[in-house]
Amino acid sequence: MLPIADLYAVVPAGGSGTRLWPLSRQGRPKFLLDLIGQGRTMIQTTVDRLLPLTGADHVLVVTGTAHEDQVRAQLPELDGVWDQVIAEPSPRDSMAAIGLAAAVIAQRHGPTAIIGSFAADHVITGQDLFEQTVVAAVSAARMGYVVCVGIEATSPSSAFGYVQATGTSVPDADAQTRVVAGFTEKPDAQTAAEYLRSGNYYWNAGMFVVQVGVLLGHLARLLPTMHAALIEIAAQWDGAQRAETLERLWPTLTRIAIDRAIAEPIAPAGAMAVVPGNFGWDDLGDFSALARLHRGDGSRVLGDQAQVVQLGGADAFVVVGTRPVTVVGNTDVVVVDTPDALLVVAPAQAQDVAAAVAHWRENGQQQLL
Amino acid sequence: MLPIADLYAVVPAGGSGTRLWPLSRQGRPKFLLDLIGQGRTMIQTTVDRLLPLTGADHVLVVTGTAHEDQVRAQLPELDGVWDQVIAEPSPRDSMAAIGLAAAVIAQRHGPTAIIGSFAADHVITGQDLFEQTVVAAVSAARMGYVVCVGIEATSPSSAFGYVQATGTSVPDADAQTRVVAGFTEKPDAQTAAEYLRSGNYYWNAGMFVVQVGVLLGHLARLLPTMHAALIEIAAQWDGAQRAETLERLWPTLTRIAIDRAIAEPIAPAGAMAVVPGNFGWDDLGDFSALARLHRGDGSRVLGDQAQVVQLGGADAFVVVGTRPVTVVGNTDVVVVDTPDALLVVAPAQAQDVAAAVAHWRENGQQQLL
Repeated sequence: MLPIADLYAVVPAGGSGTRLWPLSRQGRPKFLLDLIGQGRTMIQTTVDRLLPLTGADHVLVVTGTAHEDQVRAQLPELDGVWDQVIAEPSPRDSMAAIGLAAAVIAQRHGPTAIIGSFAADHVITGQDLFEQTVVAAVSAARMGYVVCVGIEATSPSSAFGYVQATGTSVPDADAQTRVVAGFTEKPDAQTAAEYLRSGNYYWNAGMFVVQVGVLLGHLARLLPTMHAALIEIAAQWDGAQRAETLERLWPTLTRIAIDRAIAEPIAPAGAMAVVPGNFGWDDLGDFSALARLHRGDGSRVLGDQAQVVQLGGADAFVVVGTRPVTVVGNTDVVVVDTPDALLVVAPAQAQDVAAAVAHWRENGQQQLL
Repeated sequence: MLPIADLYAVVPAGGSGTRLWPLSRQGRPKFLLDLIGQGRTMIQTTVDRLLPLTGADHVLVVTGTAHEDQVRAQLPELDGVWDQVIAEPSPRDSMAAIGLAAAVIAQRHGPTAIIGSFAADHVITGQDLFEQTVVAAVSAARMGYVVCVGIEATSPSSAFGYVQATGTSVPDADAQTRVVAGFTEKPDAQTAAEYLRSGNYYWNAGMFVVQVGVLLGHLARLLPTMHAALIEIAAQWDGAQRAETLERLWPTLTRIAIDRAIAEPIAPAGAMAVVPGNFGWDDLGDFSALARLHRGDGSRVLGDQAQVVQLGGADAFVVVGTRPVTVVGNTDVVVVDTPDALLVVAPAQAQDVAAAVAHWRENGQQQLL
């Protein structure tokens, strides 16, 4: 049954991950890092996970020109007939990234090809459940839906977006696939608690599965200028005019997320579907999430354990750099040691690390970013 | 009135200060560090404070051979006729260090010379009050007492030793000078609270002022073997046989603190006096004390302030090394950054840092000690 012959995986690999600074840097963002400590980076693990579903020649990575060489070096298996790394001249958010990939795939393989978009920097556990979910999403995509994956919420988190399911099943798809009622970006804690009680809300995993023709059709209707530009770029992508066309059109593209550009506008019309995903999922959005993930595996260290000692009731999570780290006393912090920058952060305020990055930027410490 | 012609300051500069690791190291202990951030090290500040009382040629530093060169480099003013740096071949605790200095001074200047022993790594504020206290102590020393300095206790600290005063004044000395009833090493919190209430107890500042003849007399009676060895070493100190005599006798000396060897045994006989010191005093025993001292000056940083940012309610004390330090979130820790070792410690457990040093020693990381 696998791989699915007409499925193409698109992996948008962008964003600098400032909330994981100083581990994540502009020049070496989150998706290029091994945050699990198993010797594979986030993007490598992401592609490893997709290979059984698509095969190596059906994976497309969209990244910035600044990271193109590192992406190619980390993913030597992307060596098919078609160029499998799309390098964006500048960040234009996820609609441009996924839209360009869709347009290139439509150009290469026709409008009935199906793309699945999967972030390059999420942690997923349960390969079988993940594959089953994608298979179900592909079924719904064949029916013309834009399909997202909903994670069964286990806590009233206000760090994630939510997707609300209707009671309506999608015909000829997996029985659990539902038509989407709507989306909510990061709700407040009380709203999140109500969502959790109702049982109709899922965490939005940020995955989309859709026929490229369907996606481009929505884009043509909702953002016609952007659509025209992407189609023109895609037409030249595998030809001699790629650089010229990109240079001329890319800077004109609207910066907008695909959720906002497509998912939110079309959901009220019943054009979105959600497939529940029962696999383990974490977007590792900050050091609190990173620490939680490792503690789940019984570890308080990312890196060489022998470099860390904790005494006197210390319970820090330590990201080891190049030096021994000593933590003493009853304290619950995350310590991130790198050769040129040190961070100590209280897990409850891990989101505020982005503000620290802003501080160093404003103080002219570009080399730290 | 000052300097006092027959007063000699002895500055024992030993101890590695493991509770201030990794700032303090075996090769660069606490007294060689600038812990205040004013560009002078602890031992330099100590000598600066003594110069008005004794003059530069009446200061004697006793240190280990490992630190002799650094001590001489930091104290170029000690360039009198007599050699003013006594280097111990190995640590033999404070009785040997101060006893040797006393014996050398007795040899050079006779038995009525008065020595004042002052630790090389304490913080003292209020120069005038300090000088008044030493002048009063010298008066009592002339009466044959071994004189210590008692700091007015301001809290029921269990980190300090206590000295109990009798109601008996010392004749022909300052009216506040009292005969000592006894000493207590670091009492428990309840006992310390009782001491504070009674008003008869002082913190023992670890300073001794005494005629060398009186000190050596007590030593001859209490530790005759040690006394004989020190007298023999001192007799050769400024001659050709110093090295040979030291090599032969120094290893035989008992390791004992002067408090235990002299002060505690003679106090019940009424031979000790205490002079109250109203100057500011802190032994900077650990990072909690260091942080407290700097916060008292309104600072949360030792080192370059521009290298530190604290956000989101962070209230850490940071010892800056060579890298920018970022602290985020509601946390009250001490962060000590050095090029080859990083420490994060909860102030309440700052004393446990010594255990961390033991950990690295036991794990063969000698280069960190």
